[in-house]
Amino acid sequence: MKTIKGGITAAKGFKAAGYGAEIKYKNRKDMAMIYSERLCSTAGVFTSNVVKAAPVVWDKNITRNKGVAQAVVVNSGIANACTGTQGAEVCQKTADAVGKIFNIPSDTVLIGSTGVIGMQMPMDRVEKGVEALSGMLSDTVEAGTQAAEAIMTTDTYSKEIALEFEIDGKVCHMGAMAKGSGMIHPNMCTMLCFVTSDVAISHEMLQKALSEVVVDTYNMISVDGDMSTNDSLMILANGMAGNTAITSEGEDYNKFYEALNTLCTEMAKKHAADGEGATALFECHVVNADTKENARVLAKSVICSSLTKAAIYGHDANFGRILCALGYSGVEFDPDKVILNLVSEAGSVNVYKEGTPMEFDEEEATKILSQKCVTAYVDMQAGDQEATAWGCDLTYDYVKINADYRS
Amino acid sequence: MKTIKGGITAAKGFKAAGYGAEIKYKNRKDMAMIYSERLCSTAGVFTSNVVKAAPVVWDKNITRNKGVAQAVVVNSGIANACTGTQGAEVCQKTADAVGKIFNIPSDTVLIGSTGVIGMQMPMDRVEKGVEALSGMLSDTVEAGTQAAEAIMTTDTYSKEIALEFEIDGKVCHMGAMAKGSGMIHPNMCTMLCFVTSDVAISHEMLQKALSEVVVDTYNMISVDGDMSTNDSLMILANGMAGNTAITSEGEDYNKFYEALNTLCTEMAKKHAADGEGATALFECHVVNADTKENARVLAKSVICSSLTKAAIYGHDANFGRILCALGYSGVEFDPDKVILNLVSEAGSVNVYKEGTPMEFDEEEATKILSQKCVTAYVDMQAGDQEATAWGCDLTYDYVKINADYRS
Repeated sequence: MKTIKGGITAAKGFKAAGYGAEIKYKNRKDMAMIYSERLCSTAGVFTSNVVKAAPVVWDKNITRNKGVAQAVVVNSGIANACTGTQGAEVCQKTADAVGKIFNIPSDTVLIGSTGVIGMQMPMDRVEKGVEALSGMLSDTVEAGTQAAEAIMTTDTYSKEIALEFEIDGKVCHMGAMAKGSGMIHPNMCTMLCFVTSDVAISHEMLQKALSEVVVDTYNMISVDGDMSTNDSLMILANGMAGNTAITSEGEDYNKFYEALNTLCTEMAKKHAADGEGATALFECHVVNADTKENARVLAKSVICSSLTKAAIYGHDANFGRILCALGYSGVEFDPDKVILNLVSEAGSVNVYKEGTPMEFDEEEATKILSQKCVTAYVDMQAGDQEATAWGCDLTYDYVKINADYRS
Repeated sequence: MKTIKGGITAAKGFKAAGYGAEIKYKNRKDMAMIYSERLCSTAGVFTSNVVKAAPVVWDKNITRNKGVAQAVVVNSGIANACTGTQGAEVCQKTADAVGKIFNIPSDTVLIGSTGVIGMQMPMDRVEKGVEALSGMLSDTVEAGTQAAEAIMTTDTYSKEIALEFEIDGKVCHMGAMAKGSGMIHPNMCTMLCFVTSDVAISHEMLQKALSEVVVDTYNMISVDGDMSTNDSLMILANGMAGNTAITSEGEDYNKFYEALNTLCTEMAKKHAADGEGATALFECHVVNADTKENARVLAKSVICSSLTKAAIYGHDANFGRILCALGYSGVEFDPDKVILNLVSEAGSVNVYKEGTPMEFDEEEATKILSQKCVTAYVDMQAGDQEATAWGCDLTYDYVKINADYRS
């Protein structure tokens, strides 16, 4: 498996485009389209927020009940959440418009929205956008990037990745674009991620792989603890790589799973590192926990702690806050067994061991904590299970962005 | 019942003092003592963090197992948490020093610590502090205030209250001092609260009243979602009001309960309003929920949302974030039934009703959101249960305080 240049257009048969439809923003791209030459197997995982955006309801039905899709339309600026029946109608009308242009059923058109909650969509501009996008579709790397740029909100960079790997003697591809910087605490958020692949795979196996991969990737990141109404991760696989279709577990499935897991891990880290206002990626790696689930809960509790995140921003080895966050995670453990190290590319320092604070060089610790990626390495000495969670530091800019965002 | 001037010295027989022992801070008071002429019934509620500070372990044993106490020693600067056996020895030695001076058993001496986690206490300075404090004790209002000032960390003002009420024909008093501004998310934090009363009441009834009152008062506030290793709320009642001792439920117990509930509600709001960096008290009042517990969970989810808190700081009626926080609270409900109003002393505006965003005057909304106390009034239309939670806005200063706090 290797990383190649590109994103959603890396897989055979996928085209994309980005366009400025003035949904809410001016002078930038705010609508994207993905189109596959062939009908795709599809699968999706979505927010578990009780308040679900209209597109989430729309996509869930398609990815879970129908299992096939051929096009995706995404807008930024307005989330189409808390918009009642009018919001649902927007999804239907958008899909109808796409279906009419490509002569495909409306229910093979997936829809994504991200932006302000509680604002109605300007349907006339959406329809104009769909028309413009359909005439701009291209399979170039650049077209994929334009689509990825169009779906950004407070993101500081567009998020793309592409992988090449082999299944069944055939060269296969998998690409993704995603957005999401605030309101990031997915439990399958205004986290949107679209994955394309030319692998031949059944809907059932696609959904199985996606549902399993998300647990240790997207569900292990948090920027601010706010789980969005719009979180969606969807995958489309059109089979154009020519492999024998994957319809059960086995070697081919495992290779596909490994590619999807690598892709989702790398994309998840991009969200965390680009968290609103963030200056550093903050990772918590928990090892030797009693159960896998406890390892996950402990790791996530640390990267979600506001006080710890502020300390990371201050490059301050205030390790007591990390122990405190482990302690309120809900997991039962013996604090007198825990070993805590702070690690980055600048080195490693042991700050706490088995109930007692360790003496350490503050200057060295500050240097370790001043890197772009900082890891809290927590040894629970209670078993053999491990998990990693990814977050970011808490900065002035997070507050600034979110005190001003809607206006 | 009426509010009177004062704090912990308002109840008969209680003396207090504050002193600068240089535990960690210089040029300020950092140790406090409370002493009752008579042995008191005592009760306490403590952090549910797995990582418990040494004083929490010490106090829990006394308040739960022994039920009587006569003195309290509190320091700020160092939390005596994550300090292993050395930390436990500090508690024993401190209590021994107090016991020797007053000729009382060490296990009638309660201990409170707040400050940096993972740092050892300077025992020599603690002992000097105990000696100095014991010579300074006084029953004046000023002495109570000095004690309250000594326990502050990042608090911007000291937190005191005193109530006068009648039980059994006798004039009774209840007073409190507390501290806590960050790491505030009590589930029974570095929230410390000490309540004194001259009511005669058994340990059992005292613990019952405290455990019940805390659920809808202290457990309904959050500054930053970080539950401390040190949260402690303890009460001492010495019986010097002369009422017939309360040993069962009934009219007298109800009067005591009401006073304690009023005291804890007002003190809890003081913590939230003085949250680190806060410019406003942010309250969420949920009405017509299906169950009391769901009302609590919904209200608390809203006041804990970083995005909502940043919007309150920006005086921005970004009500979608409130709906979003209700939605990820874990409570099942129908978003199409919810009515949301934003309320303050400047007025009230309906922003969302039964699935649909409402049109409202943005200028008016900004005015409402620019007051010192802002309420999100949420009608679930699902039952007849209600609850209120208290938090604060998220500001640049929160980040500043916590990026720098330890150093």
